[in-house]
Amino acid sequence: MTVRFGLLGAGRIGKVHAKAVSGDANAQLVAVADAFPAAAQAIADAYGCEVRTIEAIETAKDIDAVVICTPTDTHADLIERFARAGKAIFCEKPVDLDADRVKACLKVVKETGAKLMVGFNRRFDPHFMAVRKAIDDGRIGAVEMVTITSRDPGAPPIDYIKRSGGIFRDMTIHDFDMARFLLGEEPVAATAHAAVLVDKAIGEAGDYDSVSVILETASGKQAMISNSRRATYGYDQRIEVHGSKGMVAAENQRAVSIEIANGDGYTRPPLHDFFMTRYTEAYANEIAGFIAAIEKGSPITPSGADGLAALVLADAALQSVKEKRQIAIL
Amino acid sequence: MTVRFGLLGAGRIGKVHAKAVSGDANAQLVAVADAFPAAAQAIADAYGCEVRTIEAIETAKDIDAVVICTPTDTHADLIERFARAGKAIFCEKPVDLDADRVKACLKVVKETGAKLMVGFNRRFDPHFMAVRKAIDDGRIGAVEMVTITSRDPGAPPIDYIKRSGGIFRDMTIHDFDMARFLLGEEPVAATAHAAVLVDKAIGEAGDYDSVSVILETASGKQAMISNSRRATYGYDQRIEVHGSKGMVAAENQRAVSIEIANGDGYTRPPLHDFFMTRYTEAYANEIAGFIAAIEKGSPITPSGADGLAALVLADAALQSVKEKRQIAIL
Amino acid sequence: MTVRFGLLGAGRIGKVHAKAVSGDANAQLVAVADAFPAAAQAIADAYGCEVRTIEAIETAKDIDAVVICTPTDTHADLIERFARAGKAIFCEKPVDLDADRVKACLKVVKETGAKLMVGFNRRFDPHFMAVRKAIDDGRIGAVEMVTITSRDPGAPPIDYIKRSGGIFRDMTIHDFDMARFLLGEEPVAATAHAAVLVDKAIGEAGDYDSVSVILETASGKQAMISNSRRATYGYDQRIEVHGSKGMVAAENQRAVSIEIANGDGYTRPPLHDFFMTRYTEAYANEIAGFIAAIEKGSPITPSGADGLAALVLADAALQSVKEKRQIAIL
Amino acid sequence: MTVRFGLLGAGRIGKVHAKAVSGDANAQLVAVADAFPAAAQAIADAYGCEVRTIEAIETAKDIDAVVICTPTDTHADLIERFARAGKAIFCEKPVDLDADRVKACLKVVKETGAKLMVGFNRRFDPHFMAVRKAIDDGRIGAVEMVTITSRDPGAPPIDYIKRSGGIFRDMTIHDFDMARFLLGEEPVAATAHAAVLVDKAIGEAGDYDSVSVILETASGKQAMISNSRRATYGYDQRIEVHGSKGMVAAENQRAVSIEIANGDGYTRPPLHDFFMTRYTEAYANEIAGFIAAIEKGSPITPSGADGLAALVLADAALQSVKEKRQIAIL
Repeated sequence: MTVRFGLLGAGRIGKVHAKAVSGDANAQLVAVADAFPAAAQAIADAYGCEVRTIEAIETAKDIDAVVICTPTDTHADLIERFARAGKAIFCEKPVDLDADRVKACLKVVKETGAKLMVGFNRRFDPHFMAVRKAIDDGRIGAVEMVTITSRDPGAPPIDYIKRSGGIFRDMTIHDFDMARFLLGEEPVAATAHAAVLVDKAIGEAGDYDSVSVILETASGKQAMISNSRRATYGYDQRIEVHGSKGMVAAENQRAVSIEIANGDGYTRPPLHDFFMTRYTEAYANEIAGFIAAIEKGSPITPSGADGLAALVLADAALQSVKEKRQIAIL
Repeated sequence: MTVRFGLLGAGRIGKVHAKAVSGDANAQLVAVADAFPAAAQAIADAYGCEVRTIEAIETAKDIDAVVICTPTDTHADLIERFARAGKAIFCEKPVDLDADRVKACLKVVKETGAKLMVGFNRRFDPHFMAVRKAIDDGRIGAVEMVTITSRDPGAPPIDYIKRSGGIFRDMTIHDFDMARFLLGEEPVAATAHAAVLVDKAIGEAGDYDSVSVILETASGKQAMISNSRRATYGYDQRIEVHGSKGMVAAENQRAVSIEIANGDGYTRPPLHDFFMTRYTEAYANEIAGFIAAIEKGSPITPSGADGLAALVLADAALQSVKEKRQIAIL
Repeated sequence: MTVRFGLLGAGRIGKVHAKAVSGDANAQLVAVADAFPAAAQAIADAYGCEVRTIEAIETAKDIDAVVICTPTDTHADLIERFARAGKAIFCEKPVDLDADRVKACLKVVKETGAKLMVGFNRRFDPHFMAVRKAIDDGRIGAVEMVTITSRDPGAPPIDYIKRSGGIFRDMTIHDFDMARFLLGEEPVAATAHAAVLVDKAIGEAGDYDSVSVILETASGKQAMISNSRRATYGYDQRIEVHGSKGMVAAENQRAVSIEIANGDGYTRPPLHDFFMTRYTEAYANEIAGFIAAIEKGSPITPSGADGLAALVLADAALQSVKEKRQIAIL
Repeated sequence: MTVRFGLLGAGRIGKVHAKAVSGDANAQLVAVADAFPAAAQAIADAYGCEVRTIEAIETAKDIDAVVICTPTDTHADLIERFARAGKAIFCEKPVDLDADRVKACLKVVKETGAKLMVGFNRRFDPHFMAVRKAIDDGRIGAVEMVTITSRDPGAPPIDYIKRSGGIFRDMTIHDFDMARFLLGEEPVAATAHAAVLVDKAIGEAGDYDSVSVILETASGKQAMISNSRRATYGYDQRIEVHGSKGMVAAENQRAVSIEIANGDGYTRPPLHDFFMTRYTEAYANEIAGFIAAIEKGSPITPSGADGLAALVLADAALQSVKEKRQIAIL
């Protein structure tokens, strides 16, 4: 079976998914839509597909699934439309920045029985998958303490910050999902501290750039998350899980891993400086996982519920900062 | 000048200090006192010093300084006595488990003008000192986020737990001191989560074995601390400081650092399994620093005030767990 | 410009190159030939190209370049035929196992002015390229001592061993090329020791499985090569270059780089277990380099002369083992 | 039992041994002799022993053992004298630079039944000992290929070079001993290349500064040694042993093991810059091993025969360079 795809949104991340779909032996990229015709045409040219309108994709009989890479504020509407149109849906995170809107959208997904995957790409990183597998294989016993360090090479433009929903919903949300992925038990409480240490303009935009979070589950398992919008040494992405029988960690990745030694010491190159080079394999695995789930009719993970759960944690973290107290997750 | 020492307490840590004092070219171990005469005699035999009573050491004219390694509940009294006796004092942490008792004790120290060092040995670990030096040298710019991981190979006996003042005052207190040492600015708020994941008996004794803490300073710098009373892979002691221009970290130490590779992968031996082998150099440097400060008449660090500050953070962390909110540090 | 390709040989390595050519925006795979029609058809189906005979490719006007992945004993003949046919040629190493045959072949290449690249893929590994770049950038001063460790996960079948030309011409030849690539000066002497330690059957086939080689240049620079046909921990591929101002090294690569810690220590997974997964990027870069050189009309490296030079070193190493003396390279 | 020591030679390495003997609970430093009275007196003052002449130590009834740290050309004579005087002897390497002189000396040792340990300190490094133990424990199966990298931070003064016997007898000799220690089978052939790459003055003094050596045993096991008289990044001392079931390696040691990350990458400090800080533990373990062997009456390793065997390999390596051929070890 070949899964026939429509791509909604031909921007940076749209290109990544266009390439992944085209390179997958079990998938075919049929059409692409974008508000900017030139962007859509470029992808059409590169991968031999058609340019269509969103409406045309919605009603197309030669399309089984869509990949939604449009701006965030269109996600929930598009998910609802394509759920009703009977297409399988892969949507970049987040479904929406507002939890109530997400809930309403997921209600439609449920009613229509649509298949929906939310783009938490890090679950598909081979190193993080290997961490999860080590846990599943019993290598570290019962999970007790998760530590996630996630720092961006540099802050995005202030315009982006203003539309982002804030650091917890925009950046930490990946770590909330990863914490849930690794803890294996739902957090019931969240505490956070946040500050502006990197760029005052971020603070003036009402956001933070440096945050620390603790999550706790009902049985007392704990996850700590450290975020910064700036790391001079590259895209810092580490996870560590401490358990009753041992510990498993995934260290940072480098594009080039040589080491140069001289009187100043031993130096290895900086890390990847961009999420797309760091997570190249994750993006490919993610789409492959979506295609495989459609083909096999198996459950899709991460689901819309996963997207909502991470957003709820983000909202709780923000509330914790504002109210200087632990927030219970209901 | 040779600093002449009396040692109070001939137990495990007393032996460590006896060896450090005896091996220091600028110091002489003159006398040792212990409630168990045999323990005192063993040190006297090994290092060629006298066995005396505490009272005799208090009034001795041939003793300039004392090292207090007696049980915790005697520390504050002994500090006061020897402060009044005009001796320089090195006291193992903590001064007392009760902050008010510590304050009263430090008042006596201040009034008598006594020199007092509190035994936060980790500040003297060569690797942690190098981290502090890298910060002082401007290698990472302004400090922003400190991460401290500290896990013991195994929990102490329940009897010890019961007398310990609880994990925050007994174990995390080292990390609170390290956080202050590295942040370079006083924490003004503390938040903690705590649970019993390692041993139910610890919970029955009213304590926790797995804790996560966030400290925040007035300018928004953050420190995260992760503690567990059990780590199957040895004595896990790591620090990492993220700053505006870079990051500096001290990794774990191993007694032996070979690597064996085979079909199962590449394996390095576990870490040190005991704080005394891990911090051998730190203990020696600590006493050498105390001796040097006495000789030069220079300020002593870490001081009694440092001991109090760490205890205040421990108390705040415990309060945060109980009240599920951020606690302001006054 | 698009470079139009014919592929000769549809085996394991042929598939790798078919994928690389197809995925390159500046190239097109037009036709494939193989003695086994089914193998050729599989590639034709996967990449949308035609199955043709070698003769048809030789005379085709819609083909600019060929990739030769046929059995070793056909390489020299095919290079000559396609050089005369005016095609650019990429040929898997070696050109031939006999140095005189290689020389005769390269004479034809020279006379016809054909472009020829020999497939020493490791020069295109991003990590090894970064080592070369560090040298070129002056990071380690003048090169003095090169150390190459190269061990296969397991020995090939005895049938392969018998046709391979022996370990020096089959396996060490990659390291001879790498040594030349890194030394930046031609070796003038070679010494080798060789033994059968892995599998007696290899010795009975007249070959060795464990060898040590020293190369020396006119100015005294030295390269050491260590080879084994078996490494339980994976495909071991390391290079290190020591210079007047420092050292640069490329460590081994892993498919997954997590670390698990427990009472047995800290364990990372084994290395890649196969040259095709270890050198995935190198194979893609290699073909891209070939295409770029054709497009730009720039010199092609590694050239036929590079192929010959490595073979001469292999012959010298074998002679050194047999005569127990240093062999001068003429 | 307490072993009572006389120290012959109060120079740099003499001080190291004086400290090790004084600090050993089973040993006592009784007397020290040196051609420079002030040097002897300094050690006498520091460790509370007497200054005596060599003759006085030779005939002393209160001395059981001597440590010989005098200039190399006095070693063999002193060994013979103290062997005849019935003392146990620890002698810094080498016994002599001339193999025949060593043989004559060892004949006296044998005839007198004297106990003699030769100072190959590296056998006592805890990391290298752990490598040997991993082999003995069967962790890597049968030893096949040993790789030793040994580079000094900088070349010694030319005056020293001239008296040193040349790089093979002065520097590589430690690696020859280490190769024998690890191979577990005697080398029967040696091949070497040597050049002057670091300092022309070394060449003018008739010596080399950069050498590569291969040793081979009767069963085909191979050891490779790489030496340079200069390494900008510190005292480079690595060993690796490849076996039928795996590999074991001891990496370099650092005095401080922090890592600093910024835009230039991840940097660890240089290595130890001096053999005495690198091998502090080895020197202490070595003397402890000597004392233990005397107390228990157990065989002493490394013995005079070990010293001779390493010297024979050094002579063979030099001959190989000069004659450009493999040299058989008889």
